[in-house]
Amino acid sequence: MTFTIAINVMPLKDLLDPQGKAVLAGLHNLGLKNTEDVRIGKRITLQIAAASEQEAIAIAKEAAEKLLANQVMEQFEISVIG
Amino acid sequence: MTFTIAINVMPLKDLLDPQGKAVLAGLHNLGLKNTEDVRIGKRITLQIAAASEQEAIAIAKEAAEKLLANQVMEQFEISVIG
Repeated sequence: MTFTIAINVMPLKDLLDPQGKAVLAGLHNLGLKNTEDVRIGKRITLQIAAASEQEAIAIAKEAAEKLLANQVMEQFEISVIG
Repeated sequence: MTFTIAINVMPLKDLLDPQGKAVLAGLHNLGLKNTEDVRIGKRITLQIAAASEQEAIAIAKEAAEKLLANQVMEQFEISVIG
C-alpha cells in the first residue's frame, strides 16, 4: 500500500526566525496588524510504499532524521494524511 | 484572544516540484527506496489577535492570499492549531 505522510519541519521555539520576522513586517505593512508573530518552516509530503502505517511512519521518521530536518535548529512532526 | 493558525502552502498538483524531485533522489541515495514521491512546500504559523476563531481565520486567509501564497503556482490550506 502507498501512504501519504506529511512532515512539518519548524524552527525550534528558542531560535530566532528572521524569515518569519520579515513576513511579519510585510503583513503589518499590508495592514494586517493583528498578526503578532510568524514562524516559517517546511512542509514535506511523501508517498511511501509500505506494508503498514507504522512502517510508513518509521520510514518518514528516518527520512526526517537523516535528510529533511536539521535537529540542531529544527523540530519535526509526522502525520499520516492518506 | 490570540489564536495560533497554521497555513500550509504547497505547489499545485499539476506543477513540477524540482526541489521535491531532488529530495526524492537524495532519499533513494540514502537507501530509502520505498519513497515514491516527494513534494515540498511551506508551513507558516501565525499568532493572531482576534475576537473569534472565525475572525482569526479570515485574517490568515487574507495574509495567505496577499502575501504568503502565489496562487498561480501554489495552493494553501488553513487550520487552527491553538
